[in-house]
Amino acid sequence: MKQFSHSITFQTTGSSLLDITGPIREWVSDQGLSEGLLTMFIRHTSASLTIQENADPDVLFDLNHFFRKLVPEDERLYRHNAEGPDDMPAHIKTALTQTQLNVPLTANDLMLGTWQGIYIFEHRAHAHKRTISLHLMGE
Amino acid sequence: MKQFSHSITFQTTGSSLLDITGPIREWVSDQGLSEGLLTMFIRHTSASLTIQENADPDVLFDLNHFFRKLVPEDERLYRHNAEGPDDMPAHIKTALTQTQLNVPLTANDLMLGTWQGIYIFEHRAHAHKRTISLHLMGE
Amino acid sequence: MKQFSHSITFQTTGSSLLDITGPIREWVSDQGLSEGLLTMFIRHTSASLTIQENADPDVLFDLNHFFRKLVPEDERLYRHNAEGPDDMPAHIKTALTQTQLNVPLTANDLMLGTWQGIYIFEHRAHAHKRTISLHLMGE
Repeated sequence: MKQFSHSITFQTTGSSLLDITGPIREWVSDQGLSEGLLTMFIRHTSASLTIQENADPDVLFDLNHFFRKLVPEDERLYRHNAEGPDDMPAHIKTALTQTQLNVPLTANDLMLGTWQGIYIFEHRAHAHKRTISLHLMGE
Repeated sequence: MKQFSHSITFQTTGSSLLDITGPIREWVSDQGLSEGLLTMFIRHTSASLTIQENADPDVLFDLNHFFRKLVPEDERLYRHNAEGPDDMPAHIKTALTQTQLNVPLTANDLMLGTWQGIYIFEHRAHAHKRTISLHLMGE
Repeated sequence: MKQFSHSITFQTTGSSLLDITGPIREWVSDQGLSEGLLTMFIRHTSASLTIQENADPDVLFDLNHFFRKLVPEDERLYRHNAEGPDDMPAHIKTALTQTQLNVPLTANDLMLGTWQGIYIFEHRAHAHKRTISLHLMGE
């Protein structure tokens, strides 16, 4: 059994979902394992990870739109406003989604379903650099 | 250290929670490890995984009812309507719950609490086949 | 590759977030691994785990406040009321957050970002004892 660690930093474009499946899959493939477990961990509290449909871009639009309505930017609703009106909603949307994801690996490929992509969900209004720690274990 | 991979396909009955604790526990037990980590990964974006109370069926009813009210089926709310009025809500409810779960293993049994069961949360209106990838690592 | 299992019981103070980063980090450090994967699993269905900002206590207040408004204590909304008005909302808030978290380990320290802390999110009104199962794997 072997393990590999890595980290990749992505540039987001503000409130939206960024498909990171390609670079993740490439790094996993490069490690040459046939079977194992990938863990992804985002080192931030105002952006998160999610696995979503990769076919229709409207799904990503609707998903972001739903979360923006569910957790409105309205300073009267929060005590924590010092970092801007989008910061506390970003923390809440992070809590409602994932900071960490696992995907099993078989035959040197991630066991993602046909329609599954891996996304960074940027919850802040403006572009940010977001670092994902990767850990892969297997044989 | 050893690892085992497997997948199990379940038949859901439409919008509801399906207890899959038994078949999961049985597969884990059959691998004969005394200590380790189980990962479950659902290969879909309109059904999810959750660990919930296994005692009172009303908990499952209320949980499903809450999510159906929180994420209504109303085509005016979404751009992505081509796959039916229940599809986009299913993606959102998946994002709000889990695509993947870990449970540690000790003394050849999952470390589930007394009241914890493992469920597939079917978010589509109609019955579907849902495949869970399992990965177990330990000794 | 080695693995270590442990469990820690924490006393919560009722509906609020409890920072458990210190005791978790200390146990991980004591195992002496330089690289690996930590899994935390909470053995309950009315309290959960989340990774959140550790700087401004108002973030924790706002987070709890948001969830209490999103999932109100109102017996007319639920069938499952036998365990008190705070019980079914606690199950729903657990489903909306995490029962399990992974954090990768590098250079004998958790790969938490600067502003990330690990929290038990107590959803019941009153104080409870909450047990976290820990599993650490690596070298």
